[in-house]
Amino acid sequence: MTNTFNIQLPFHERGFHLVTSEISSQLPDLPASGLLVAFIKHTSAALTINENADPDVRKDFSTFFNRLVPDGASYFDHVLEGDDDMPAHVKASLLGASVTIPILNHRLNLGIWQGIYLCEFRNVGGCRNISITIVE
Amino acid sequence: MTNTFNIQLPFHERGFHLVTSEISSQLPDLPASGLLVAFIKHTSAALTINENADPDVRKDFSTFFNRLVPDGASYFDHVLEGDDDMPAHVKASLLGASVTIPILNHRLNLGIWQGIYLCEFRNVGGCRNISITIVE
Amino acid sequence: MTNTFNIQLPFHERGFHLVTSEISSQLPDLPASGLLVAFIKHTSAALTINENADPDVRKDFSTFFNRLVPDGASYFDHVLEGDDDMPAHVKASLLGASVTIPILNHRLNLGIWQGIYLCEFRNVGGCRNISITIVE
Repeated sequence: MTNTFNIQLPFHERGFHLVTSEISSQLPDLPASGLLVAFIKHTSAALTINENADPDVRKDFSTFFNRLVPDGASYFDHVLEGDDDMPAHVKASLLGASVTIPILNHRLNLGIWQGIYLCEFRNVGGCRNISITIVE
Repeated sequence: MTNTFNIQLPFHERGFHLVTSEISSQLPDLPASGLLVAFIKHTSAALTINENADPDVRKDFSTFFNRLVPDGASYFDHVLEGDDDMPAHVKASLLGASVTIPILNHRLNLGIWQGIYLCEFRNVGGCRNISITIVE
Repeated sequence: MTNTFNIQLPFHERGFHLVTSEISSQLPDLPASGLLVAFIKHTSAALTINENADPDVRKDFSTFFNRLVPDGASYFDHVLEGDDDMPAHVKASLLGASVTIPILNHRLNLGIWQGIYLCEFRNVGGCRNISITIVE
């Protein structure tokens, strides 16, 4: 049995943001066993799972991915929407549009150091639409 | 309740290809709520979600990933199957073997700019077998 | 219907390890159709699907990812837990915390060359906790 619905995350500036509670607060009661799939309905932002404690980790993620896929790289042809656009598309696929998280005992079965990151790759991205599916 | 079955995608040349309709046309009616998982049964190709409009985006994906994991890189030992083989394996894991897409109101709940890419990393890859699971 | 439970993988040294049978041996009978989700409850290790035959492939994965995200890179600020820690976080998100594998005819519907890799990024990582969900 599944329950699929859309939620929104408000504007976040370019960077990596811990959004576990922003998402959890928009969920119904969770089943005893199941899956949560969160899927971002955009191609210039991503969701991933990573460390939920030290803000430096999120800063280092920005540093790394901005070096790996530089804004305005001369080898990109898709440049009409700005220097940050094509790098955003590449980063979105490197990190992925969705996270699949197990549910156990009515809670997300995350490790104690794990949280959900919103990866915002546009300089000015706006609200982000997320589709949630709970499978039980 | 789930429905798992295999489909095929015909030969595509090396590169990134928008295959949303090639996959959708092989699906049964979708439920009101659920998930579609498409899983590629190969280790030198991948599936990802990205921009469905400008072909330059797919070209730029090829450029970026061919630079990131160069054919014939001297640091690879697994070279017997050709210069493109080990890079294909690495790219396959960077992009992932599967996509998980929510289903809502009997349709894939994709964003308006999102489509499914077949990422073909071999110079001559052949048909690609995809396992589909619909969860409702 | 889902069945979620935790398993453990014993200590593996830093590198990429084929763990398909280590995981399969801890599974109950599989349904005729469904999904297996394996989710690693850590942020310095990952799971991915790749080639299950030549050990050189796993060695080349180590080479590639150690070059891509070098230990002790000067641009990282999160360094208190060692030179391998922040690179481990980045690699974990590049490869992903989970794999979603279709089930067909009571077996994992993997391609003949596919297996599950444990990607251990810490020099001394310890046992790894994996959450398994079977959807049928």
